Amino acid sequence: MSEPLRLGIAGLGTVGIGVLRIIRQHEALLAARTGRRIVISAVSARDKSKDRGLPLDRYAWEDDPVVLAKRDDVDVFVELIGGHEGPAKDAVEAALATGKDVVTANKALLAIHGQSLAETAEAAGKALHYEAAVAGGIPVIKSLREGLAGNDVTRVMGVMNGSCNYILTRMETAGLSYAEVFSEADGLGYLEADPQLDVGGIDAAHKLAILSALAFGTRVDFDGITLEGIDRVSIDDIRAAADMGYKIKLLGIAQMTGRGLEQRMQPCLVPDTSPLGQLDGGTNMVVLEGDAVGQIVLRGPGAGEGPTASAVMGDVCDIARGLRGPVFGIAADALKTSTPAHAKAPAPYYLRMSLEDKPGALAKIAAVLGEAGVSIDRMRQYGHDDTAAPVLIVTHKTAPDALNAALAAMESTGVLSGTPVALRIEQV
Amino acid sequence: MSEPLRLGIAGLGTVGIGVLRIIRQHEALLAARTGRRIVISAVSARDKSKDRGLPLDRYAWEDDPVVLAKRDDVDVFVELIGGHEGPAKDAVEAALATGKDVVTANKALLAIHGQSLAETAEAAGKALHYEAAVAGGIPVIKSLREGLAGNDVTRVMGVMNGSCNYILTRMETAGLSYAEVFSEADGLGYLEADPQLDVGGIDAAHKLAILSALAFGTRVDFDGITLEGIDRVSIDDIRAAADMGYKIKLLGIAQMTGRGLEQRMQPCLVPDTSPLGQLDGGTNMVVLEGDAVGQIVLRGPGAGEGPTASAVMGDVCDIARGLRGPVFGIAADALKTSTPAHAKAPAPYYLRMSLEDKPGALAKIAAVLGEAGVSIDRMRQYGHDDTAAPVLIVTHKTAPDALNAALAAMESTGVLSGTPVALRIEQV
Repeated sequence: MSEPLRLGIAGLGTVGIGVLRIIRQHEALLAARTGRRIVISAVSARDKSKDRGLPLDRYAWEDDPVVLAKRDDVDVFVELIGGHEGPAKDAVEAALATGKDVVTANKALLAIHGQSLAETAEAAGKALHYEAAVAGGIPVIKSLREGLAGNDVTRVMGVMNGSCNYILTRMETAGLSYAEVFSEADGLGYLEADPQLDVGGIDAAHKLAILSALAFGTRVDFDGITLEGIDRVSIDDIRAAADMGYKIKLLGIAQMTGRGLEQRMQPCLVPDTSPLGQLDGGTNMVVLEGDAVGQIVLRGPGAGEGPTASAVMGDVCDIARGLRGPVFGIAADALKTSTPAHAKAPAPYYLRMSLEDKPGALAKIAAVLGEAGVSIDRMRQYGHDDTAAPVLIVTHKTAPDALNAALAAMESTGVLSGTPVALRIEQV
Repeated sequence: MSEPLRLGIAGLGTVGIGVLRIIRQHEALLAARTGRRIVISAVSARDKSKDRGLPLDRYAWEDDPVVLAKRDDVDVFVELIGGHEGPAKDAVEAALATGKDVVTANKALLAIHGQSLAETAEAAGKALHYEAAVAGGIPVIKSLREGLAGNDVTRVMGVMNGSCNYILTRMETAGLSYAEVFSEADGLGYLEADPQLDVGGIDAAHKLAILSALAFGTRVDFDGITLEGIDRVSIDDIRAAADMGYKIKLLGIAQMTGRGLEQRMQPCLVPDTSPLGQLDGGTNMVVLEGDAVGQIVLRGPGAGEGPTASAVMGDVCDIARGLRGPVFGIAADALKTSTPAHAKAPAPYYLRMSLEDKPGALAKIAAVLGEAGVSIDRMRQYGHDDTAAPVLIVTHKTAPDALNAALAAMESTGVLSGTPVALRIEQV
């Protein structure tokens, strides 16, 4: 058997402890699978005295992850600190500079600094693996980078933030408002320290940016993503969508078009009987499409101690087996710069609006839609006690430009009460 | 860029032509992803003169795949001949003996001779990759061998024969008998040359045997599989199952128990709203469960030119990138020999029988079930013009031994007309 592979683990939160547990419980199994013993030399976290439920005295302790990353007895630096600046970035850079392989679960770091880190890692001939950064326990990075290597990847889609999916599912099943479920989820510790990372769609968009780079051989372009969070999804929309046979999901879609790279992360409607429509709670789903393979759908737990640690250990085992290779599947200096493109392809849209209770109000809206070339598939007006009448419309396939023109024209009719909600309906 | 990676491709059926197409269409993409040009030196098939829709004159031709496998200008032998004896086996052995890496789509070969071939490949330090052998385009081998390497895998399940799933789906949707749909599928070229490989469950069992070895670190044990095909599934059962909220699927399950390795491939009922229940037509689904990751579900096309060629090319790209490693994830000489174990865990069962039209017939059956400790969850007796009354029973969870005892006791009541059908209900 070869020399042991020695890890330095920075960050002892849920995932870090999960990694420690796997290494302690599966010592023989890991050695059999990789041909090497996998051992931990040193660990680092903010608070040494905190009780983490596991004895840590067998590992050297470093207060500073940068010092940990540079230790001579560390072959692989495992970064589980998080955040795209500060200690996580400093320590990963220090590790690569001193010839260590790196495994990280940090989507923000990869989404923002992926290009420069990939260049550094590849120049050093070292691995920068990040399976745990996207969709938790689902081996989506490996599937895309290796499994589908023979494909021109045409589209990548997914529900990749379990917290958002939990909130949307819970709003529907319990009939609670966004604010109520948000507080509940926050109290249960389901949200990031900065909840906007979750509910603003930023965390999911980080993941989408990483998948896009892998899928299309382009430099990571987080800023090119059309991004909208779930914080404006109301219980009224969830109910109305359900009434029309849909569920609302925070869905990411990336595809290469003749106009450039289209990347968007936004609340969409999906048919409630579709695989994405049936995805409840914290589960993630990623859809990969390639010219040879057709469509592959991967489903699994998107977060949590075990699943995320499983992904980290998959990366560690790859390194123990000698698998390195370009960070984004193609040499970093050969990744193309993409031009961001907005969605142009027609899709059905869901519209919800309130109309003032005047004669001819609905006729005006219908006329404006018709003039903009937006054709109505289904419309429902609900009974009301109010001065405004709730109206739901599902359109036939409509180009986004035409829809936006119609929305602008609707504003000028003077019959709207408040601003209409428009959500794209995706057929997945 | 390194030296080109030179392939010799034996077998130019659907998959072989698919591989040729990918290599011709994606030359630059493959080179960017692997750092090497991937080229074809020579090909081999039974009939040189057949028009395959692609010009083959740029490749050397060999009539004998064994000669192809030994050529000096071949680095990787791609075996797409099929069958577990004869030219496929001879050529793979010749390739490994002359220091070539091997990529194969041949599940029968791996399921029957996997152990000896793995030992040969590992002794030679060469790859024997076989992603295309299981579940077509779904990267399930890679997910299990690498992605879940940090897990003690607890269970593997799947619907892995698209032809059987097509037949069962078509029987249900068209209301046709097994014999009618079998003829139809055979006429459409959906079945293997020996259809028993498909409908007898053998092909799917080959795949399950391979997954078991990878999952549990055991020697491939095809003979240890409890195997039952779909040829005895009747349209009556499909209708009755649907009536009770289930679908019938040819489902493979492998799990390590205290008594040994339980592997079974048999028609089962699954809830019609479950992911497996909604899997229609030729699509495959594999469920992987591990102690850390929980449950991962992979869905995709299980056969066909593009998907299978995609899997072959994933393996070729791995070799181009230098990824070899043990064939079954653990060194072949360290794989354990497993003891086959029959299912012992209780499950609900579906029973369909015809009772002779005599007073007290149903009471006798109910009494016999009760005496055997089989508790009835739901029972339906249907109207009939016949001398025998159709009866459906869904039991509460019942141990297989108790069920078999009850079935034997039912025979001796003298009220049965014909043999009852008993199918296990799996909650996936």
